[in-house]
Amino acid sequence: MKAAMKQAGRQTGAFSEEERRGVYRAIYERRDVRSHFLPDEVSDDVLNRIMDAAHHAPSVGFMQPWDFILIREASVRRAVHCNFESASRRAAQSYQGEQRALYDSLKLAGILEAPVNICVTCDHYRAKGSGLGRQTDPAVALYSTVCAVQNLWLAARAESLGVGWVSILDMDELKTILGIPPALSIVAYLCIGNVSEFNSQPDLEAKGWETRSTLESVTHLDRWQGA
Amino acid sequence: MKAAMKQAGRQTGAFSEEERRGVYRAIYERRDVRSHFLPDEVSDDVLNRIMDAAHHAPSVGFMQPWDFILIREASVRRAVHCNFESASRRAAQSYQGEQRALYDSLKLAGILEAPVNICVTCDHYRAKGSGLGRQTDPAVALYSTVCAVQNLWLAARAESLGVGWVSILDMDELKTILGIPPALSIVAYLCIGNVSEFNSQPDLEAKGWETRSTLESVTHLDRWQGA
Repeated sequence: MKAAMKQAGRQTGAFSEEERRGVYRAIYERRDVRSHFLPDEVSDDVLNRIMDAAHHAPSVGFMQPWDFILIREASVRRAVHCNFESASRRAAQSYQGEQRALYDSLKLAGILEAPVNICVTCDHYRAKGSGLGRQTDPAVALYSTVCAVQNLWLAARAESLGVGWVSILDMDELKTILGIPPALSIVAYLCIGNVSEFNSQPDLEAKGWETRSTLESVTHLDRWQGA
Repeated sequence: MKAAMKQAGRQTGAFSEEERRGVYRAIYERRDVRSHFLPDEVSDDVLNRIMDAAHHAPSVGFMQPWDFILIREASVRRAVHCNFESASRRAAQSYQGEQRALYDSLKLAGILEAPVNICVTCDHYRAKGSGLGRQTDPAVALYSTVCAVQNLWLAARAESLGVGWVSILDMDELKTILGIPPALSIVAYLCIGNVSEFNSQPDLEAKGWETRSTLESVTHLDRWQGA
């Protein structure tokens, strides 16, 4: 497979219909997975493939500002899970009544169930790229790092691996747990593993937390239209 | 194709080898395209497919904070191009000697050559999602929007469309040109079109601006390692 990918890396032609379908399937069938994780180990080969996919994300000035902390150790995941539980209790206080009951019923992280967690960081000060494209908007290093996350997520779906992005975490405390230098930003904390199934809809849509907007409602022609 | 995608949206199974290869090809063969744009029109069908792919990105709390301004009008693109040229002249002053000569030789945007531009914005205050997942890190709305950009970029590669992300722009001035409300953030300005070829390497690698780091150099086990 690795050889096949390197081979693929040299191709520059059109996609077959089935290859193109694979891309759209990954995009439409990717789910933010919180439940259904299986305890089976994820092989180093597969992890290497999805992380290499992340590492081939676009980056401003080719700066490649990301780092990946691959976490399997249960004690580390337990510490992160405690962090998540405290942050989620604090967040719950924003909601009242029915919405609070719905919040409390949501499964929002699979930190302990997923056998692998990956923390993705961004180094704003990385010398690579010599600042190209970063003068006008300092956030672009973060954006490059997010592109790496999305590459990993789509590659994982193609490998039938579930990925859940946990954002309900105290990021400063998470830096301490993982020993991340203070100047770096944590962009994503991902839970990764094999799954018993992929839901056909996002959890938050299925549970009635939110509905999907139409593409038309977020599309404008030539200039911003409407309020 | 639309029917095929909706069909795909209901599937939840494993990918065929060719579908999986399609995903990795999109990831490895995606390029940040500045040159090689062809003037041919891009059909509404294809644009709709890649924008719908963007609209199916993950978003925190299912908030879907993005908007897409689809720009074909030449006068608008000319105004954006002027903005880019001024910003690029200012950015050039950061570089001296050989690096400045190299900077000056780089083709950094295809705003006028690409028949379609898309500006992608983020609305931090969108009510959708009721703030879920946003209490701990306000940047997550931006991250969701970047995931939409990366979905669009990969779908475009599968459709043999080139995409270039221009970050060398005065974003406040760009908001004025496009009539974007001040409270929104511009996340990406994309140039999109058919291309005569996809380069086998990133331009900045081929031109010697920067080298690709190894995956090993950005991977850590269980905790941050090294300086």
